[in-house]
Amino acid sequence: MNKKGLVLVLSGFSGVGKGTVVKKLLEKYDNYALSVSVTTRSPREGEADGREYFFITEEEFSRLEREGRLLESAGYVGHHYGTPRDYVMSHIDAGRDVILEIEIQGAMQIKKRYPEAVLVFVIPPSAAALKERLSGRGSETEEVIAARLKRAVEEAQGMEEYEYLLVNDDLEACVEQLHEIMTSEHRRASRNQEQIQKIRKDLAQFVEGD
Amino acid sequence: MNKKGLVLVLSGFSGVGKGTVVKKLLEKYDNYALSVSVTTRSPREGEADGREYFFITEEEFSRLEREGRLLESAGYVGHHYGTPRDYVMSHIDAGRDVILEIEIQGAMQIKKRYPEAVLVFVIPPSAAALKERLSGRGSETEEVIAARLKRAVEEAQGMEEYEYLLVNDDLEACVEQLHEIMTSEHRRASRNQEQIQKIRKDLAQFVEGD
Repeated sequence: MNKKGLVLVLSGFSGVGKGTVVKKLLEKYDNYALSVSVTTRSPREGEADGREYFFITEEEFSRLEREGRLLESAGYVGHHYGTPRDYVMSHIDAGRDVILEIEIQGAMQIKKRYPEAVLVFVIPPSAAALKERLSGRGSETEEVIAARLKRAVEEAQGMEEYEYLLVNDDLEACVEQLHEIMTSEHRRASRNQEQIQKIRKDLAQFVEGD
Repeated sequence: MNKKGLVLVLSGFSGVGKGTVVKKLLEKYDNYALSVSVTTRSPREGEADGREYFFITEEEFSRLEREGRLLESAGYVGHHYGTPRDYVMSHIDAGRDVILEIEIQGAMQIKKRYPEAVLVFVIPPSAAALKERLSGRGSETEEVIAARLKRAVEEAQGMEEYEYLLVNDDLEACVEQLHEIMTSEHRRASRNQEQIQKIRKDLAQFVEGD
């Protein structure tokens, strides 16, 4: 099985529990790493450079973008955010699968710039289950729930662009399923060309050696 | 997750233990079924129609082929063999994954006629390990071993046409990995279009209903 790590792009509805799935996956298996984004916004209290974000200047951000060193980037209320290619690749070269928890626009950029990435979309067991989660066990106002549902409809637009659908019904099961998807992706013939060439060469040598 | 079954095409080197892997998979999980081929050869002692093969006439075989009702077919020492589409589809519709243990020529035909099939190639941990297995623990002559190795070189030709590589080092692990590949394949977004449409429609109705 190939030793190089994979890029896992994880998207899904707000409120579906992606963050918890990622946290559990990182706790349970040591071959995963979380991607750290770059941002041009200032660090907030308690945030450390290289942990929550890499905090960089507008000039540095522009340079990264110009040099094609961002796997995806986006603007949000006057600041820039992006996924640094070098950081992701260093994990991959060390054999770790890197998790990017991002929204669909970013996911589509990555699919284009790094087609080997594995794209997984997390869904709730049903729309009704999502509505219940978004209602925050009755603590939210009608307006807040309506706004969240409207957002969910938007988030559902690009679902078929993803490669896998993962249902977050039971957290433990969901984490296992995600790990199985990644393990199976490592077994793809396209990711194991070296092993194919090696066994072919070794077999041929046996025959020639006879 | 989609309920329709999948077609699993399993190939690999002679002597790699495919048969044992299939047997264990069928014993361990009840969502798999083994495909039964049609053949124009006569039944041998102990063979039952519909168990080892469906025994059919040359006329019936020609008709199946003409009507596009074979997923793959081949000739061997004057007889015809093929995989009947209807039989495979009836298992698939019943939600079972159907296993076809066939060689590369047949696998390539299936890929063409039924692109949704999942193609897995089983390899030994190394060429040396295969050589050892083919030597039959020292019970075989040099000539037999040489012929088997030559065959292995031929079998290695189309490996990269497969979607997954599976290493049969430890039998139990290999069976689990194969099951994981199939389970993950069921989670492909492309195989779950109905679920995608349903959640999208249900979410939209919540929003419109507000």
